[in-house]
Amino acid sequence: MSRWEPNARGRLEQAALDLYRERGFEQTTAAQIAERAGLTERTFFRHYADKREVLFGGSPALEQAFVDTLAATPATAAPIDAMAATLETVAAFFLERQDFARQRQAVITANAELRERELIKLASLSAALAATLRRRGVKEPAASLTAEAGIAVFKIGFERWVGDSGERTLAEFLRESLHELKLVASGE
Amino acid sequence: MSRWEPNARGRLEQAALDLYRERGFEQTTAAQIAERAGLTERTFFRHYADKREVLFGGSPALEQAFVDTLAATPATAAPIDAMAATLETVAAFFLERQDFARQRQAVITANAELRERELIKLASLSAALAATLRRRGVKEPAASLTAEAGIAVFKIGFERWVGDSGERTLAEFLRESLHELKLVASGE
Repeated sequence: MSRWEPNARGRLEQAALDLYRERGFEQTTAAQIAERAGLTERTFFRHYADKREVLFGGSPALEQAFVDTLAATPATAAPIDAMAATLETVAAFFLERQDFARQRQAVITANAELRERELIKLASLSAALAATLRRRGVKEPAASLTAEAGIAVFKIGFERWVGDSGERTLAEFLRESLHELKLVASGE
Repeated sequence: MSRWEPNARGRLEQAALDLYRERGFEQTTAAQIAERAGLTERTFFRHYADKREVLFGGSPALEQAFVDTLAATPATAAPIDAMAATLETVAAFFLERQDFARQRQAVITANAELRERELIKLASLSAALAATLRRRGVKEPAASLTAEAGIAVFKIGFERWVGDSGERTLAEFLRESLHELKLVASGE
């Protein structure tokens, strides 16, 4: 197939999400995804290493964005404020991506292996954030606890954003989630 | 084999931990564990469903202890104080178990599949604690954030306790970890 394939990646992504939800992740093959997208299996593998990468291909870039943003916050900021600024910046990556995030979440929730993969992703992110904080001079256990708190805020805020049918942005949900964590920790 | 087997479970546990550390978890079989313990494979399977259960057999009881203790705290306590009281009580389960916990942690750290299993255990624990808090009337997202905060405190405090060669109890490490989380959240 040598014809031009406009937005092949986006078409494959949507076809994959549709099939994962219709048939289940396990039951879907790369060939079926390509067929649904009107593309060849070879084109699928030019864009994705396997069918799981449609869901997790963005994870390394997300982790890098988290780490780079956290590393770039002023060294004078309290760790939790550096984390707040980081969440704010990272949230911008998800503008226009709520539909994808919502469909992706439905697929992941329905499959134990994918839920495990998501937990591993978040644990890796937490470890990377703790290491970044230590490089900024934050001592342990403060570094690890700030990282875990940031991931908890991200996880809960993200789930609420995905489950929301309104117009509020991820940044708003993350801000609310962080505010709530602070209230909780202060015993209010 | 009909002779009496004094402390068969304890002997199997120690033999398993020794072999997992010497040969790796993957490379160890139930038969080898039994042999090392001077017992039969049949005796192994009377005590453990499989070799993974030596490491994770206590997880359901731990989760139940967490949930029961949290549910029994006075309803007037702030959620974070209820969580603090719960951590304090649960820590008592680990008195006399530091050697086991330390050996177990070394095995888990060395094996990706076991690290994933540990993450799943903690995620399940967090979900159970959030559900318990909701039953106490705590609203979302406060319930989920309190649960996540409690698990973060438990995870970090536990890791520090396991890595410590001194005499301090798990309860002390959990108290310190919670105190540090409160400082972090308040921006100090």
